[in-house]
Amino acid sequence: MKEKAILIICDGMGDRPIKGKTPLQMAKKPNIDKLAENGICGMMHTIAPGVIPGSDAGHLSIFGYEPNLYYEGRGVYEALGAGIELKRGDVAFRCNFATVDGNLKIIDRRAGRLKDEGKELEKSFAGVKIDDVEAIFKSTTEHRGVLVLRGAGLSSKISDTDPHAENVKILESKPLEENKEARKTSEILNKFTSLSHKLLSENQLNKMREKQGKLQANILLARGAGAYKKIESLYERHGFRSACVAGGALYKGVAKAVGMDVIYVKGANARVDTDLNAKARAARDALKKYDFVFVHVKGTDNVSHDGDLNGKVKMIERIDKLVGELMKSDIYLILTGDHSTPVGLKAHSADPVPVVIHGKGVRVDDVKKFDEISCARGGLGHIRGLELMPIIVGFMGYAKMHGS
Amino acid sequence: MKEKAILIICDGMGDRPIKGKTPLQMAKKPNIDKLAENGICGMMHTIAPGVIPGSDAGHLSIFGYEPNLYYEGRGVYEALGAGIELKRGDVAFRCNFATVDGNLKIIDRRAGRLKDEGKELEKSFAGVKIDDVEAIFKSTTEHRGVLVLRGAGLSSKISDTDPHAENVKILESKPLEENKEARKTSEILNKFTSLSHKLLSENQLNKMREKQGKLQANILLARGAGAYKKIESLYERHGFRSACVAGGALYKGVAKAVGMDVIYVKGANARVDTDLNAKARAARDALKKYDFVFVHVKGTDNVSHDGDLNGKVKMIERIDKLVGELMKSDIYLILTGDHSTPVGLKAHSADPVPVVIHGKGVRVDDVKKFDEISCARGGLGHIRGLELMPIIVGFMGYAKMHGS
Repeated sequence: MKEKAILIICDGMGDRPIKGKTPLQMAKKPNIDKLAENGICGMMHTIAPGVIPGSDAGHLSIFGYEPNLYYEGRGVYEALGAGIELKRGDVAFRCNFATVDGNLKIIDRRAGRLKDEGKELEKSFAGVKIDDVEAIFKSTTEHRGVLVLRGAGLSSKISDTDPHAENVKILESKPLEENKEARKTSEILNKFTSLSHKLLSENQLNKMREKQGKLQANILLARGAGAYKKIESLYERHGFRSACVAGGALYKGVAKAVGMDVIYVKGANARVDTDLNAKARAARDALKKYDFVFVHVKGTDNVSHDGDLNGKVKMIERIDKLVGELMKSDIYLILTGDHSTPVGLKAHSADPVPVVIHGKGVRVDDVKKFDEISCARGGLGHIRGLELMPIIVGFMGYAKMHGS
Repeated sequence: MKEKAILIICDGMGDRPIKGKTPLQMAKKPNIDKLAENGICGMMHTIAPGVIPGSDAGHLSIFGYEPNLYYEGRGVYEALGAGIELKRGDVAFRCNFATVDGNLKIIDRRAGRLKDEGKELEKSFAGVKIDDVEAIFKSTTEHRGVLVLRGAGLSSKISDTDPHAENVKILESKPLEENKEARKTSEILNKFTSLSHKLLSENQLNKMREKQGKLQANILLARGAGAYKKIESLYERHGFRSACVAGGALYKGVAKAVGMDVIYVKGANARVDTDLNAKARAARDALKKYDFVFVHVKGTDNVSHDGDLNGKVKMIERIDKLVGELMKSDIYLILTGDHSTPVGLKAHSADPVPVVIHGKGVRVDDVKKFDEISCARGGLGHIRGLELMPIIVGFMGYAKMHGS
C-alpha cells in the first residue's frame, strides 16, 4: 500500500531560549502541537553536528542528497528556480542590478531596489554571446536575476564580481583553480560585466530613470557560481512523483535539482506576508497528481535575520493555520526546519531543529508540544537530515528491502 | 560573536550501578547537578558503541580527531607530554626503569618504584647514538620515562621489550611488519636495551644503591611504540587558541598533538591528591589568553582501577568544587569523561559517559542530575565523541556554513 506525504520546511524555524523560552515555545500553535501529540517527534541535525546549514545545502540534505557530493553552488539553484532549463556544464550565477559611477565604483548594490523594471532591462541581453559562450540573463524579483554561461570548457571555480559592499570598485573575477576552464570562465564573466555596463547604460529605461533623477541600474554584479550537472531524481530513487510549493526561487531550484515539479502559486512570495492559504490549497491540490509535496515557508527565516522575536512568534502562529489546513488530508504530514536561525544571533546556527512525523501507524511518543526542548525526548531520537527522507519513504511504502 | 569554553574531562568517571546507584549518583555534587539542571545533557560513546576507549584514543576522539586516522601509539603522546619536541618520523616509547639479574630476568619491573632518582640516571644516556639513529631518553615520574629514536627509515611496527611481567626474561623486540624499516627499528631498540643495561650498571647512583642493598635500576624496558607525524591543529581547524591544564603526561601529550599549549600547574600530579584549586586558577587564568581550555582530572580513574568505590565518590565530590570555581566564568562549561571505568571491573569499559554543556543559549532540558541514568534522557541525545567538539565549536561561534 502506497501513501502520500507533505513535508513542510519552515526556514530557520529552530531557535534558542530567550528568557527561558524559544519562539516555538512562546507561540500559540494548537494545530502544530496536536501534530506533535499524535505524531512521532525528534531532533534533526540537518547536515551534521556543528555544521551550520546554508539553506540550499540544508534542503539538499533533507531531500536525501549528501551536500558534500551534490551541492553545486547557489547559482545553480537560483537559475533552476528562475525557470531556466540548465544543461550539463552550464555555469550559473546570482546577479544584482547595481549602480556604478564612471570608475565602476558601486553607488548602490541594488540600484535603488528596482520594482518591476528588471523585465524591461533584461531585454538588453537578448542573444548576447561572448566569444563562443552564450550568456543567458533572466531578471527575477526586484533587483535580482540570474546569469547562465553556456559553452564548452567552463568552470564554476571562479571568484565573484560582486564585492558585497558599496563605495568600492566592482571586482574582477579570478580563477580559483589553476586550469584553462577557470581562466576562460573568469575572463568571460569579466567581459560580460563590462558589456552589461555598456548595454544597460544604453537601455531606454535607464535613460528615462536618469532624466527622472533616479539611480540607473547600469551594471550586473555576479556571485555564487555553480556548475550544473543532472542528478538522480527522487522519482529515480524512490519511484514516486513529487512537487514543490514555494515562494523563493532558491527552494524551487533545489526542488527542481532533485526532480520535483514546481507548482506556481499566486501570492507565494517568500516573505512574511506570503499567502499561506494559497499554498495550502496548492499543496492539497497537488496531492491529486503527486505522491510527495514539499511546502516551503520562508518567513520564519526573514524575521530571524532581522532579530524580530515577536515577528517570529507571529509567523509560527500563521504557519499553525497552514498546518491545520494540511492536517485535513489523510496523508503523512512532516514538519521541520532546514536549520536554526536564533533571533539572538540574527544568523544561521548549528543547533538542531525539531521534527515531527504525523500519519497512519507512526509510533506516537509522549511529546505533546512541538519545540526544541520537547522534541529532544521524542520517539524519533536525534537524526541527521540525510536520514529523514528514508524514514518518510519508509512510511510512504516505497522503501526497498535489504536482503530477503 | 565569539565565545570561550572550558572542557573538563574526568578520566574514567563513568560507572555502573552498584546496589542500584552509580558513584555519580551517590556523590554529593551540588555544583555539578546545577550544571546539569541549567545545561543541556546527554550520553557520549567516546569512540563508538562497544569500543573500550583507551585514554589517549578517547581524548583524541573527544577533541574531534578520528582515532582510526590519527592515533599514533601511546609512546608519541607520552613523549610529547614529557616535553620532547618530536620530528616527523620519530619513533617514541614509554619506558620503565627495571631491575634484571645477570640473565636479564626481571626481578622488579619498576626497580623498587624510584622516587626522584630518574633524573640522575637519565644522565647516562646523554648523546647516545646507535648506528645512525639518535636515542633520546627522558626520565619523567618515578620509574617512568620516554625514549625517542630519531633517524631515517624507522617504523613503529615493532614489539615491546617489556614483557609486562616479572620473573621472566626481557623480550627481544621483533618487527611486526615484513619490511626493512621495522627490522631496523627493532634491531636498534634491542641494541639500545643492551646498552641501557651496560650504561645503567655503570651509573654511580646504581652503584650506591647496590651498596645500600637497594634494587638497581639497571635496564630500560620499552613499550607502546608510536611514530610521530604532525596533524592539523585545533587552531588550523577552527581558528581559536587552546590550552591544556593537566597533571598526567599522556593528556598533555594528546593535547599537544592537537596543537594545544600546555600550561604547567604546580601541584597538578594526576593523582587523587592533585591540587584542584591550582588547576581551577590556572584554567581561569588561561581564559585571558586562550579561547578553549581543556582541564583533565585523572583521580577518578585511579580509584576506579583500584576498585575503590568510596574513593571514587570522594573524588567526584572534590571535582564538584572545581566545577563550582569554573562556573563563575561567563563561558561555555562542558563536563564529561573519556570513558567509563566501573569500580566493579577495575578496568575501562565500553559504557558511554554522561556529558553536559552549560552556557548562553543552550536548550536547557529537564535533566536535574548529572549521572549515567539521568543524562540518558537529556536534550543532547546520544552522541559520539567525535560529535562533541563540533557542537562546542558551534556554541563558541566558530562553526562554518555549508552552502549559502
